[in-house]
Formats: sequence, structure tokens, C-alpha cells
Amino acid sequence: MIEGNDLVTQLRELSAKAAFNSWLAMEVASADKGTVELAIKWQPEMGQYSGLLHAGIQGALIDTACGFAAVTLGQNVVASQFSVRCLRPAIGESFLARAWVVKQGRRQIFAQAELTAMHAGQRTLVAVGDTLLLPVD
Amino acid sequence: MIEGNDLVTQLRELSAKAAFNSWLAMEVASADKGTVELAIKWQPEMGQYSGLLHAGIQGALIDTACGFAAVTLGQNVVASQFSVRCLRPAIGESFLARAWVVKQGRRQIFAQAELTAMHAGQRTLVAVGDTLLLPVD
Amino acid sequence: MIEGNDLVTQLRELSAKAAFNSWLAMEVASADKGTVELAIKWQPEMGQYSGLLHAGIQGALIDTACGFAAVTLGQNVVASQFSVRCLRPAIGESFLARAWVVKQGRRQIFAQAELTAMHAGQRTLVAVGDTLLLPVD
Amino acid sequence: MIEGNDLVTQLRELSAKAAFNSWLAMEVASADKGTVELAIKWQPEMGQYSGLLHAGIQGALIDTACGFAAVTLGQNVVASQFSVRCLRPAIGESFLARAWVVKQGRRQIFAQAELTAMHAGQRTLVAVGDTLLLPVD
Repeated sequence: MIEGNDLVTQLRELSAKAAFNSWLAMEVASADKGTVELAIKWQPEMGQYSGLLHAGIQGALIDTACGFAAVTLGQNVVASQFSVRCLRPAIGESFLARAWVVKQGRRQIFAQAELTAMHAGQRTLVAVGDTLLLPVD
Repeated sequence: MIEGNDLVTQLRELSAKAAFNSWLAMEVASADKGTVELAIKWQPEMGQYSGLLHAGIQGALIDTACGFAAVTLGQNVVASQFSVRCLRPAIGESFLARAWVVKQGRRQIFAQAELTAMHAGQRTLVAVGDTLLLPVD
Repeated sequence: MIEGNDLVTQLRELSAKAAFNSWLAMEVASADKGTVELAIKWQPEMGQYSGLLHAGIQGALIDTACGFAAVTLGQNVVASQFSVRCLRPAIGESFLARAWVVKQGRRQIFAQAELTAMHAGQRTLVAVGDTLLLPVD
Repeated sequence: MIEGNDLVTQLRELSAKAAFNSWLAMEVASADKGTVELAIKWQPEMGQYSGLLHAGIQGALIDTACGFAAVTLGQNVVASQFSVRCLRPAIGESFLARAWVVKQGRRQIFAQAELTAMHAGQRTLVAVGDTLLLPVD
């Protein structure tokens, strides 16, 4: 993982074009060929009814990190399908989604991701997921 | 589907407790035993980088509608896993997620959902998904 | 659903080329544009450790029925990803997988399926699933 | 990974009770706390229509390996849902599914798996998948 490199800069510019990423204040924390880390800080408006990080935002982080992992390989993509497995209550002051490309094909790209929460100084895996991506020009 | 009934009122109160639902201005459009419709109006801050509805928000609608469908059967739930299949570009002035319970078990509840977009007077199916829910007290 | 039509004949010939379909004695029960029904009779060697239909065979039926549903639209395919949700214990004298195409795109085809069991004269939904298919020549 | 240990013996006995596992000649290759390897040798009757390993058998290996990984932690399980992502054509003389438990909860167990093919002396990742398991007595 390399912070502050050209890939990070490129992804930050891409992310700035996605209004929802900006609303979430999604931060490209690191990037390398085939892998990306995205971070957000918890905000109360991100909660579901019992105050945990909304599953939709968990999905947004996983889906976006997977897509950005494909971008680091020089390929723009759109999501075709994604899945999220909610392992533990998503509670924390910040969240980090790490995604990596499992298989880059000509017709589709498979990526996986892990979402961790930082809570009271401890990092916990709260969700895992995967995204199937279609290359676009 | 019944609008303005007790289930709708109950779900609106539940949704009001979820800060992210409020941010999205998610509206409980209808509810009946085992099925729910949730609506949102498009806002530019909901976009991904090419201006479509962000896949994360598609997931949030599908996941929330599935959970609410379980609530109409008298069962509070948390999401255990969910999947979203992005069939077509999610472009529209408004979006409607319709979910229904496929199987209500004692230990888990299976629900499915369809997400349609209303665009230039025409309704189009843009995504389908499913959620596996755990009953909670 | 039309039995004994040209689509059924075509799919039976295709299925005969798949050795595993033959081992399962998978029968094309009906076919129409965009939809297919596949049937198998229970055999003890299809069981998992407690005697239910093995989840792998449930998946084989769902995946194959989805692929055949695409074939009825004139498109040969390979599976890219599939999911199976096991709703109830898969016990029966016979099983029927019904699949239908949800979206036929140029680059990918989405299909869904239901698996029912016939047990003691009663038909029960035991699993649902979906398959993302890639067109091949 | 430990071959020939007590866990391997226990899983072989369990697998022997599953008639379909026996038909596939599924072999417990190794087992340790939370992780398992299952192997099969290619047989022509395992093929789909173009001669690759049938997606259903890929699913059976992934689902079974995930379930056995849970058994190594002292928990019998049934599959609740599973997904298979078919990364590459599944061609080989033998196949190995490696599964591991991602999260062991009281109410559900999440496991993941990788399926590799051994073909012409080279091992290739052909599929990945995940299973959500329910504890049973």
C-alpha cells in the first residue's frame, strides 16, 4: 500500500466526481495495483434505526472500493452485482474498506472487499463482500 | 397494497429513527402483510461518478425494503447478508423499491426486492436483490 | 409453458451433452421463450449427510435451469456467478426447478429460479436462486 | 494444515454419510481448526455440456468445504445460502476446494472457499465462493 502516489491522486479525482462519495466524505486512504483502501468517518446521519452504520453505506463502501481496485489496473467499470455479508454490528468512529481484484478478465472483473471498524482503539472486521464489475470505456 | 394504514404509520415511525433513511428522504409508500414499497426522489448528491443512482443507495433501498417487509409480519430484524443485481443504468426522477418476504422462519427470514426507476414518465426495472434477515427482539 | 415443443427438443439435445445432467437424469419438463422447467427424481446418491437433496445438486438444478432459460432466447451462455438460498429442507420424491430470464443484455444475462419439492403429494418451495450468465458463441 | 489427524478422520466419517459426496469420491485432504481442504478427481460424468466441471459440482465442493470448516470448530451446520463466482473455465485432472470460517457466531457461521484446478501440472484458481451456515444440534 502506497499513500500519496499517483493512483491515490487519480482515484481522489474520480471519487470527487461521485456526489454520494463526497456526501459520505469517502477518503482514498491508499492504492496500489489491484488494491485500494477507502475510509470514512462515522457521522450520525449514516445510521440505521439502532445507530449502527447503515447496511447500504456498508455496501456503498464495499462496492466503491471494489470498483476503485479495478481502476488501479487501468480499467473503468460499472457494478453488475454485489453482495455484502454483515458479520458483526457495524459500530465505530471510522470505517475502512479494503478491496482487491481477484480476477481481471476482458469481459468482467471480480473483486472482493473487507470492511473494518475502528472502535475504542480496536479494529474489527464487520463485513465482507464481493463485486462483479463490467469494463466500460 | 394499502396506503395510509397502520403498517405504513408504524414503518414511517421506524424509518424516522434511521438517520440515513431520513437523509435519503426515504418514504414508506405502501405496506401490507409481508410486503412494502419504499420511494425516494432523485437528488444529485445520490450519484455515482457518471450521475446514476449510486449502487450503495440501490443497496440501501433494497436492504431497507426487505427489512421493513419482515417488520410487517411483526418481526424486527437485522440484515445478515444482501445482494444487488444491477440490471440497467439507474437513472430517474424517483425510485421505488418493492420487497416481499419469501420465507419467514423462526431463525431467519428471506426477502426479495425489485427496484424500479421512474424516468420521463416510464417505469423501468433497474435492479433486483435479496436479503437474509435475522430476527431480533 | 409448452411441453414437447421445439425448444424442449433443443434443450434435451443440449442437456444430453452434459454428462452430469445425464447422471442426475435431469429432464427438460417444459420450455418457452425465456423460461424453462427442469425435473429430477430423487435418488439416494443425491443426498447430503442427513438425507436431504445435496445443496450442490440444488445449485446444479438452479444454475442449469437459468442457463437453459437463456438458451430459449437463442443465446448460449456460461455461468459467471450463481447464488442459492436454501429456504426449507429439500426433501421429496422429485424436484422441479423453474427459471426465467430477468434481463437479457448484450454482455450479460440475469436469470432467477425457484426449486420446488414434491413430497407426499404436496409441492413446496425449497430454494430460490439466481445466475449471472455470459453470452458465448 | 494437518493430514491424517483426528479432524480429518472425523470429517471422512461425516462425508461417508453423504451419498453425493461418495458419488463424487470427495476426499478430505486436510483439516485444521476452522479450515478444510476437499479434493476430487475429474470424471467425465462431472461435465457440463462443453466438458468443464459442472457449476453444480463446483458449488457442491464449495458448499461442502465451507460446512466442514464449521465442523472443525465443533459445530454441525446446514447451509442457508451459498454463492459461487466462476472465475475461469474449470478444467483439470483434479480439483481442490479450500474453505475457512470467517466468523463463527452463535446464530450463524460465515465461511469462504477457493476452488483450484490442477491441470497439466499447474494449479489455477477457478472459482471462489461463500456460504452462510446455520448451527444445528
